[in-house]
Amino acid sequence: MEINGVQIEDTFAEGFPIKMARVLITAVTERWALEAAREATGFGTSVIGCSAEAGIECIVDGSQTPDGRPGANILICNMGYKNLENSLLFRLGQCILTAPTTSAFSGMPEAEKQFDTGKKLSFFGDGYQKQAELFGRNVWKIPLMSGDFVIEQNFGAVDGIAGGNFLILGQNQMAALTAAEAAVNAISKLKGTITPFPGGVVASGSRVGSKYKFLKASTNAAFCASLREDGVCTLAEDVSSVFEIVINGVSKESIQEAMKAGINAACRVPGVLKITAANYEGKLGTHQFPLHTVLE
Amino acid sequence: MEINGVQIEDTFAEGFPIKMARVLITAVTERWALEAAREATGFGTSVIGCSAEAGIECIVDGSQTPDGRPGANILICNMGYKNLENSLLFRLGQCILTAPTTSAFSGMPEAEKQFDTGKKLSFFGDGYQKQAELFGRNVWKIPLMSGDFVIEQNFGAVDGIAGGNFLILGQNQMAALTAAEAAVNAISKLKGTITPFPGGVVASGSRVGSKYKFLKASTNAAFCASLREDGVCTLAEDVSSVFEIVINGVSKESIQEAMKAGINAACRVPGVLKITAANYEGKLGTHQFPLHTVLE
Amino acid sequence: MEINGVQIEDTFAEGFPIKMARVLITAVTERWALEAAREATGFGTSVIGCSAEAGIECIVDGSQTPDGRPGANILICNMGYKNLENSLLFRLGQCILTAPTTSAFSGMPEAEKQFDTGKKLSFFGDGYQKQAELFGRNVWKIPLMSGDFVIEQNFGAVDGIAGGNFLILGQNQMAALTAAEAAVNAISKLKGTITPFPGGVVASGSRVGSKYKFLKASTNAAFCASLREDGVCTLAEDVSSVFEIVINGVSKESIQEAMKAGINAACRVPGVLKITAANYEGKLGTHQFPLHTVLE
Amino acid sequence: MEINGVQIEDTFAEGFPIKMARVLITAVTERWALEAAREATGFGTSVIGCSAEAGIECIVDGSQTPDGRPGANILICNMGYKNLENSLLFRLGQCILTAPTTSAFSGMPEAEKQFDTGKKLSFFGDGYQKQAELFGRNVWKIPLMSGDFVIEQNFGAVDGIAGGNFLILGQNQMAALTAAEAAVNAISKLKGTITPFPGGVVASGSRVGSKYKFLKASTNAAFCASLREDGVCTLAEDVSSVFEIVINGVSKESIQEAMKAGINAACRVPGVLKITAANYEGKLGTHQFPLHTVLE
Repeated sequence: MEINGVQIEDTFAEGFPIKMARVLITAVTERWALEAAREATGFGTSVIGCSAEAGIECIVDGSQTPDGRPGANILICNMGYKNLENSLLFRLGQCILTAPTTSAFSGMPEAEKQFDTGKKLSFFGDGYQKQAELFGRNVWKIPLMSGDFVIEQNFGAVDGIAGGNFLILGQNQMAALTAAEAAVNAISKLKGTITPFPGGVVASGSRVGSKYKFLKASTNAAFCASLREDGVCTLAEDVSSVFEIVINGVSKESIQEAMKAGINAACRVPGVLKITAANYEGKLGTHQFPLHTVLE
Repeated sequence: MEINGVQIEDTFAEGFPIKMARVLITAVTERWALEAAREATGFGTSVIGCSAEAGIECIVDGSQTPDGRPGANILICNMGYKNLENSLLFRLGQCILTAPTTSAFSGMPEAEKQFDTGKKLSFFGDGYQKQAELFGRNVWKIPLMSGDFVIEQNFGAVDGIAGGNFLILGQNQMAALTAAEAAVNAISKLKGTITPFPGGVVASGSRVGSKYKFLKASTNAAFCASLREDGVCTLAEDVSSVFEIVINGVSKESIQEAMKAGINAACRVPGVLKITAANYEGKLGTHQFPLHTVLE
Repeated sequence: MEINGVQIEDTFAEGFPIKMARVLITAVTERWALEAAREATGFGTSVIGCSAEAGIECIVDGSQTPDGRPGANILICNMGYKNLENSLLFRLGQCILTAPTTSAFSGMPEAEKQFDTGKKLSFFGDGYQKQAELFGRNVWKIPLMSGDFVIEQNFGAVDGIAGGNFLILGQNQMAALTAAEAAVNAISKLKGTITPFPGGVVASGSRVGSKYKFLKASTNAAFCASLREDGVCTLAEDVSSVFEIVINGVSKESIQEAMKAGINAACRVPGVLKITAANYEGKLGTHQFPLHTVLE
Repeated sequence: MEINGVQIEDTFAEGFPIKMARVLITAVTERWALEAAREATGFGTSVIGCSAEAGIECIVDGSQTPDGRPGANILICNMGYKNLENSLLFRLGQCILTAPTTSAFSGMPEAEKQFDTGKKLSFFGDGYQKQAELFGRNVWKIPLMSGDFVIEQNFGAVDGIAGGNFLILGQNQMAALTAAEAAVNAISKLKGTITPFPGGVVASGSRVGSKYKFLKASTNAAFCASLREDGVCTLAEDVSSVFEIVINGVSKESIQEAMKAGINAACRVPGVLKITAANYEGKLGTHQFPLHTVLE
């Protein structure tokens, strides 16, 4: 299979279950909503070493938000609901409540699982907080020096999927990287997914395990062009750099849609030679995303 | 005292000791250095609820970096060196090693305190990592799928100061907020300081303690204009919104310089009525920054 | 009429006929498409002193472009078709052909009026240009040092409308300006309109004529708060700053939609006191946009 | 000669005299200063087809501006002083006077050549304009709806140089383009120069003349990799894309400094194979910039 002359390997990405909550941040301008969103989703690339996996899902204009202001959806992901509740409490309390002009609404009001994060954070109001019905939502108004902070009482969470992915093999690093940028940008327009790594891109694709017993993951030596002389690199001769796009999504469909949009975008960039995906031969994950099926 | 017609209250900001490390991130473009810097300093507003206080100190052009590439200095701050070492390990490992085209150099090579974070992270190379002398620095080259990651073996850290601050009192929220943006921008040009809150701005200035015993801090009710009718707001009648700028710095002088630049910038914005600062009457902090002295 | 507590004056905006062409610029990334778009639409605020009125209409993702790459639509407007043809020739030739990785497609392929701008520009290829059918479009491929430039042979143009507008009256300058930013951002999500002034905002709303005979327009003294003491300002006492949003659109409906989205956004910003619109009492324009009707 | 493994050809760039004026735009925030600067310098790549060559020279912080607000220097260039005066009048009148919160100061107050652009634009005030001495400058205050516009009476201009340049030859388009981005970014930190093309980069390097007599310039076929099969491309086999950086500067020294910074930055990007420069064999220009001398 080929797209725009780029070979698509007949393999699959392998995904894992993860719990995720969506928070809709609104603010006086889109710019300030994004500042809060970036802070709240920072240091959130992988649960291996971060307290959560987090990213900006999409921008939302005022015609689609409860308070009519511009906003951004973020997704926060943890392996279990207990950790997710903690992530919500600390990321909202430290990064959204503290951010200029923001409000925080649940992006999953229909979910079965609900956390009363808004109620817990309302105690910051020192007794002056007030519960209210606003825009059809059950919210708390917390008086701040800069103005009242409005936060929904409950935030919903669902079973999602982590580890959707594809790999971009380039003639050189800049071709692969620009393709990664184009892919992340295309995915950023879609609802339901995030690309939690820096700028949406993984520079350090890994394998499970290591020769060092204290490490859970290590560099994917077989894909490291600089190890060609060591005899461990299995990349074709013309490939000299590989970037990975990792995608978490609220559903199998959302990940499929993101993979399709991202791969299509990457294949428009000159110098991209091949697209493949990372998996564990189906031994570890619960979901498989075959590239050829996703791209149909 | 007045600047551009804005009253400067005769009071002081109160600062506390904190440990901080500077990391110089370089990348193929300034844009990618900043992507890594933002991810590595995210979820890093206050050690009350974040694993560190962190921010982008300044942009560094290629003429001032070891590898001649553009870069950004970040500062990572913790109450003790043990926590700081952890922050370095996880924030660099998860957010810089994973970011496209980055290298990480110590921004405090002369410091007495040194952590071998680069050596620890080098094990990700799964035995293929190599120590080298590059650009006069002792570094590790870790093979990645996208290319080698270069990281200095040791990262220095020093005693710094947290809690430098000033408050901007505005006729309304947008006047105070624009002044805060102007202040943060002016501070961002300086070396030695960060403004770790979202977009550099604190919307939720707080007091120590709370009527709720389980909370260490709560909203500063005396400065909440929306509590005027409750009789607890002590702001002048014409003030309706207050934003705070919190500044961490490597030295007393750097904080003074940042406060001066920030206040001067804020006072150029129409609708700003008064500048003051937050303190604990000198009972808690180790450093005092009197506004009138700082602005001389 | 009120929106979110902001008074909407019962008046109308007055629009004029103008000719406009839409150009779809695609590039390797959205970022580079926008660089070209900004250059091509610069120095394009008003035909009073610019060679055209021009602006970025909206961002277009790869799923909606002929070549599958990300892009941006721009609109270029002139009083007559002859001037518009010139604007296309020079703005495309100087700002899009010269921009990295771009292609230029007609955004109005169905229009009756067509200019062969692509054919004219193809001569830059010095005989090496080639006509081709690509993506269902009749294009020219012009060899450049950086790669081939693809441009559609013909660009369509239509009768549009200039001068849609509304005015934002604020308690102070920062409130009115932030509201203007929010309004422009909301309009930027819509198809069919541009806000051609710097950052989408007009700081210098004008009236037709002047006490100086050599000037066609002059400051709208009745709306200048700084002329209150001169007795010419008719603004209410609490208003101290007014910004105008000027909108050009491909149809009456597109301007109505943009006015509605922009006013709704502006009215969410604290410190906005009133929305009104500029007209010439219906004496000059061909289209009237009554605010109360637009906002229904 | 090599930099970081990239070959630097022993050739020279050839420059021409041009007239240029520097305008310092200040605004309430750096962001708004840049909005005005972008509009005022747009549609300004080459005097072949634009009314001027223009670009943002550098950002200026509030400690270095007359009014203490953040700002941006722009340079506007024309072949003669008469055209330059027109450019100042129209670009300032249409793009800076109209932009939110801006003021405009002369960036060359010491120049022998002076234009009274500020005085001419002051008539927009319809009789309410007032001359004043502000910040040690002779300015006009023009009442606007959004607040007063302050503009210096006179703007200075000097003899500068156009056509400083270098070419980046890459293994592929993305390598050459990323290097161009890095080069432009490095140059943007310096005072005295602009890179007037879109995003600072020229995709369509040209030669003087054409097989078509009505064209003054045409594609540089010898450097077009896509014409390799036509037998006209003289590029080495491994080169597939070439971008040019064109630099205008206030002095020979400023162009030398910019070329040095830009080339050094470009040579740090993997996939860049060679740097060269464009000239007319010394037959047309008045200044020569030998690469090896510039890089010493």
